[in-house]
Amino acid sequence: MRITVCCSDTKAAPWVDGLQAALPEAEVSEWQPGAPPADYAMVWSPPQAFCDDQPQLKGIFNTGAGVDALLKLRLPPDAVVVRLDDAGMSVQMAEFVCHAVIRHFRELDAYARDEAQSRWGFRKPRLRADFPVGVMGLGVLGQRVAQALAAFEFPVRGWSRRARDVAGVQCFSGDAGFADFLAGTRVLVCLLPLTDDTRGIMNRATLSQLLPGGYVINVARGAHLVDEDLIALLDEGRLAGAALDVFRIEPLPTEHPFWAHPKITVTPHTSARTLREESIAQIAGKIRAFSRGEPIVGVVDRQRGY
Amino acid sequence: MRITVCCSDTKAAPWVDGLQAALPEAEVSEWQPGAPPADYAMVWSPPQAFCDDQPQLKGIFNTGAGVDALLKLRLPPDAVVVRLDDAGMSVQMAEFVCHAVIRHFRELDAYARDEAQSRWGFRKPRLRADFPVGVMGLGVLGQRVAQALAAFEFPVRGWSRRARDVAGVQCFSGDAGFADFLAGTRVLVCLLPLTDDTRGIMNRATLSQLLPGGYVINVARGAHLVDEDLIALLDEGRLAGAALDVFRIEPLPTEHPFWAHPKITVTPHTSARTLREESIAQIAGKIRAFSRGEPIVGVVDRQRGY
Repeated sequence: MRITVCCSDTKAAPWVDGLQAALPEAEVSEWQPGAPPADYAMVWSPPQAFCDDQPQLKGIFNTGAGVDALLKLRLPPDAVVVRLDDAGMSVQMAEFVCHAVIRHFRELDAYARDEAQSRWGFRKPRLRADFPVGVMGLGVLGQRVAQALAAFEFPVRGWSRRARDVAGVQCFSGDAGFADFLAGTRVLVCLLPLTDDTRGIMNRATLSQLLPGGYVINVARGAHLVDEDLIALLDEGRLAGAALDVFRIEPLPTEHPFWAHPKITVTPHTSARTLREESIAQIAGKIRAFSRGEPIVGVVDRQRGY
Repeated sequence: MRITVCCSDTKAAPWVDGLQAALPEAEVSEWQPGAPPADYAMVWSPPQAFCDDQPQLKGIFNTGAGVDALLKLRLPPDAVVVRLDDAGMSVQMAEFVCHAVIRHFRELDAYARDEAQSRWGFRKPRLRADFPVGVMGLGVLGQRVAQALAAFEFPVRGWSRRARDVAGVQCFSGDAGFADFLAGTRVLVCLLPLTDDTRGIMNRATLSQLLPGGYVINVARGAHLVDEDLIALLDEGRLAGAALDVFRIEPLPTEHPFWAHPKITVTPHTSARTLREESIAQIAGKIRAFSRGEPIVGVVDRQRGY
């Protein structure tokens, strides 16, 4: 079995070595133009030239959970596309989102401003019941985030394309359920896959439907959000703030207004990092199972887009 | 049944009205010197004069979890002292401590400094396994905090005076277990009651035993910590930082070095606030049960101090 590794923006060597160690029976090497045809590929943002060069691939294993960039390519026709399934990402996402929600709910930025002035301030505790959190996207990451928030006794709502049932979470689904979901949500968390259906889903029309004092947390993809609409709603006082970890262009350009906006917290796509060891172990296991004809999780429906 | 209410630093009226509404069969009023003798008292930081004036009290219900200030008074000899038991505090404590741990673990202050310069920085993810969190005090609050941290997959250790067994938490106890507890802890959380045994428990000798890069979170009482020792260890680089919510003198004096120390986060005793509705409901229920001779939780052992 031959496996080729193609990573943009990151060194391939540790991935090649790690996968080789996990699959000693395979021949693992970094892709170069004109490399011998491989059975499987482990990729991160490969160029079109890679796909054109390896049309015989049977499986492409993405070292991330989102495959929107990958699906923009003309892919080898028969390759099954497989995305990372948790691999240490859901716990990172849960902690990142819980941190952002607690920071906002408990007014910790206001306390930090007081601290900078050596000021011992008192703020009336806010009621958890007034801060329902709505999670869009109830896959592995969304479910974990929703349940972590529920453990802190926030009222938690979830919305997904198809109906889901998540313990402790009030679930809504589809176009029919979207308005009800938004109307009862104060803190909106986006964990959707990026598809034609979800691009720009957070815009003036939808964000205006949130409860007063709405707060937006985007940890999915920058293109889920219409940047100008968010800024306008913040400046009009119709939203209280936003924590953004993902952007239409990354790195976020220095001149982008998000950076300096007083109601926006910017982090550099750090909410849930791919962890090399966990990812290699998972992909090695999946390649082995797939090559034996066994079912694996994380197979992407190319039409649906996730 | 007559109940007297005595609160320092806060208006008594809403507490009197709330308790009266919850216990219509009782006669509830605010304490004044020379008031008629009551059966029970609901108190927050009462003066000595209150105790001297009401020697016949059968029960004193504290509207907080810590009774260290109350036990410094000469109390009515036969009064059972009862502390608040959770009443909405444990979830606040869990969220406050998890926020502080995640903020430190995920280097969110460093990201905030980058953000202030419109800088898209990359930081190598740190390993959860390198951040064992140790919780001192495994009462209602400590257990809830420990389990919330365990849900984020941090290795969690607990230490208490008497041996405890908490699911998912490696437990240590007593003087014999203290050194082992400290030696494997990187982030130390204090949730102990303040007693003669625990006063100054976080000092140069004990904090020096933490793993390299130690971080201190104090959400119990200021007197658990020796202020000068913490500052010295931070300045020597033997500790990485601290999040302090409680202080020997509150409000923390403007000139105290904690305020401006770059490695210390100060919040104004806000980690877990007494919630009036929940507290009144709990105390009303306990007064009713106690007066019927039923057992209640939260009875303080005056000798032990909690």
